[in-house]
Amino acid sequence: MIKPRTPAGVLELLPPDQIAFQRMLDVVRRNFERFGFLPVETPVMELSEVLLTKSGGETERQVYFVQSTGALEKASDDTPELALRFDLTVPLARFVAEHEHDLAFPFRRYQMQRVYRGERQQRGRFREFYQCDIDVIGKDSLSVRFDAELPAVIHALFSELDIGAFTIHLNNRKLMRGFFQQQGVIDPAMQALVLREVDKLDKRGADYVREVLAGDVFGLPHGVVDRILDFVRIRSTSHADALASLDRLVNGERGAVNASLAEGVAELRDVLELVRAMGVPESAYALNLSIARGLDYYTGTVYETTLDAYPQIGSICSGGRYEDLASHYTKSKLPGVGISIGLTRLFWQLREAGLLGTASSTVHVLVTQMDASHLPHCLRVASELRHAGFNTEVVMEPSKIAKQFRYADRAGIRFVLVLGDDEIATGKVTVKDLRREDQFQVERADLAAALRVELAQPAGVP
Amino acid sequence: MIKPRTPAGVLELLPPDQIAFQRMLDVVRRNFERFGFLPVETPVMELSEVLLTKSGGETERQVYFVQSTGALEKASDDTPELALRFDLTVPLARFVAEHEHDLAFPFRRYQMQRVYRGERQQRGRFREFYQCDIDVIGKDSLSVRFDAELPAVIHALFSELDIGAFTIHLNNRKLMRGFFQQQGVIDPAMQALVLREVDKLDKRGADYVREVLAGDVFGLPHGVVDRILDFVRIRSTSHADALASLDRLVNGERGAVNASLAEGVAELRDVLELVRAMGVPESAYALNLSIARGLDYYTGTVYETTLDAYPQIGSICSGGRYEDLASHYTKSKLPGVGISIGLTRLFWQLREAGLLGTASSTVHVLVTQMDASHLPHCLRVASELRHAGFNTEVVMEPSKIAKQFRYADRAGIRFVLVLGDDEIATGKVTVKDLRREDQFQVERADLAAALRVELAQPAGVP
Repeated sequence: MIKPRTPAGVLELLPPDQIAFQRMLDVVRRNFERFGFLPVETPVMELSEVLLTKSGGETERQVYFVQSTGALEKASDDTPELALRFDLTVPLARFVAEHEHDLAFPFRRYQMQRVYRGERQQRGRFREFYQCDIDVIGKDSLSVRFDAELPAVIHALFSELDIGAFTIHLNNRKLMRGFFQQQGVIDPAMQALVLREVDKLDKRGADYVREVLAGDVFGLPHGVVDRILDFVRIRSTSHADALASLDRLVNGERGAVNASLAEGVAELRDVLELVRAMGVPESAYALNLSIARGLDYYTGTVYETTLDAYPQIGSICSGGRYEDLASHYTKSKLPGVGISIGLTRLFWQLREAGLLGTASSTVHVLVTQMDASHLPHCLRVASELRHAGFNTEVVMEPSKIAKQFRYADRAGIRFVLVLGDDEIATGKVTVKDLRREDQFQVERADLAAALRVELAQPAGVP
Repeated sequence: MIKPRTPAGVLELLPPDQIAFQRMLDVVRRNFERFGFLPVETPVMELSEVLLTKSGGETERQVYFVQSTGALEKASDDTPELALRFDLTVPLARFVAEHEHDLAFPFRRYQMQRVYRGERQQRGRFREFYQCDIDVIGKDSLSVRFDAELPAVIHALFSELDIGAFTIHLNNRKLMRGFFQQQGVIDPAMQALVLREVDKLDKRGADYVREVLAGDVFGLPHGVVDRILDFVRIRSTSHADALASLDRLVNGERGAVNASLAEGVAELRDVLELVRAMGVPESAYALNLSIARGLDYYTGTVYETTLDAYPQIGSICSGGRYEDLASHYTKSKLPGVGISIGLTRLFWQLREAGLLGTASSTVHVLVTQMDASHLPHCLRVASELRHAGFNTEVVMEPSKIAKQFRYADRAGIRFVLVLGDDEIATGKVTVKDLRREDQFQVERADLAAALRVELAQPAGVP
């Protein structure tokens, strides 16, 4: 006898949680599609040579390698031929480069699949998790206007997920680079180090960060340190405030504004105006000049999204603009902009925070059975309900009626149908509504219509 | 530069095909849910010890093993700790045994995930493919009545997939075993060998099979061979014919009918009656005594499903009744009944046979752009359409209008919106319907309602 168990670091859900998770996946997909993104799925296994284009990065990325029985027997010392994807970005790059001549650009794609990372074992860290990504990929160039669509998707999606107020934070890497250059911090690596210290503001406080930046290691003048701290504290409170902050950046500085800063400000201004034109309310987005994100990857607009009441959860949806998606695979220049949601982790965090209510079952109706001889009749009624679009389960083996009700209650099934001798003789059905703790009788022919009225047509029921 | 390519044996789809495939997945899932099955997803990686319970079977099952970077460096000779699932049945067994005390029995679950097999490379064989499975698992016992639900699911599902007329073939392993015993073919291994020969009837003809079974190797009497060939040729033409055939099996034989045959006949009769009560039309199911399926696994009802016009595709949905799902993991007796659809292979076969029409895009509406200054107006109209439930794409960068129309046409987007100076000034919208090759103008406020009328409310649009 072998103990049944899953490997460490995976999240396996029982049906009630799986239903809740599946509903989140459905909301994400519906909103991705609503904005015109097209579905792509890639194989979970990629050729190692194709996946691991940057030598030496394997360990960092904690890659899982795959070998079939035959390959294992060969016991070669080489890197195994296959590896599991560790994100959806490298597979997207491979996909777009491979199918370049079959795709229409700008190419809007969504992808919602699991990725694999051999993370150190830790609570809330997963080795297998869903990523839900959208990207717009241009050929040769891609207007900054596309950067404005993604906050609109984020807004629509998280509004429908209904997990509380959220803020989409916007920044721009060109703006940041220009600002740091203006302060005499020219080297990108040094900029990254400074930002890492600045990131400790919340935890360690301003005095600590000021001391480090002005200290021996960084040796920045006090005036520069103050300007950096003022800069990263800029968070807009409204659309007008965001525009005013941007104005101050280009008009407030003594001397000439450098090209990178000016370009970043102009891009952010365009993006903010279009985000508003797309109907995203001012309360849902903000300029936040502390947002940096993957410094070696993003080159323009960057996004993070936080839940207003749960800042400790961190960013629930991030991304940005990059210059060249697939330079390892093609000479074509493929700039893009994208965002990613780590849905497994988000689900886990929402559940931990008690933010997930009890999901109702996918089953709308349970048809009970009083007597084995009634089964054909019960099956016919169930068949009618299914044709009318209701997810219907039939009790196939008679048991005590109380037990059947208890089952429906525990499973979160709202409507329980009773078809006793009386009901069958009179062509009627007794419906118990477990949510309203109510019951009523209808003609069998009117049953679907009656249930539809009760449900007031929620999603999933025609 | 690395050549972008996928590993051999995987099916990666471009968006138009991915949309068609996704629609099939949606239909399958909708029908599984309609019959009260609950969602389960399991990790793609299982512990090798748990997955590979039968020693020696690894090679047959062509298992992929998984190792993280760290584990590879250890270079151990042991079997790697992790392996990819090769079906959904073993993970189901592990899941039910592991969560036995948290599940309500009979447990109806559906699972639609990819599985992995290191198949020899061959056209139409895949190393990664979707399986779509449903099973009902009982605790201690499970009434044969549940066996009748699955043909109803198969019927609903393939009717909605709309890929032509199909037949669900039903047989029963007890009936077969009893019949062969009655013919003096007692040993189950010998029964399997006889059935393997019988399976060649279509290809080699009756004379060949008769010769082999009566020949030196099998040495069966001519009368027995004739009765076996008569038996496996039994295929009902109607519900009444199926019942009559079953009657002849128990009444036509000289002497006493053995218990196994009698039990099998009784079970099949019950199943057929309930299948009819569930509203499955007679034309969609048949008694077919040549159906055997996994002889060492199934113990009662067995199913296969074929497309009437494409018998060469083989069974597109198969399954049956088994005695004990999880005997490797638990002492509890868990009998079950289930079916499985290999959706990747089915999709590929339908495409090869030219049975997949051109799918329309997931995008309902393309909002064109005549001039860059119109973009905010275009975005507002798009936002209204999305709120009304239409998947809407906006042309973000102005280009020649003919190019925008060509894009919509190629992408399979039905409605193209034109918002020129005139339209914007008068508060109107020009709609081109690329399917009907028609166009009309409406007030912007009436746009969503007008499109809804045009679409006549197909699935996915409220």
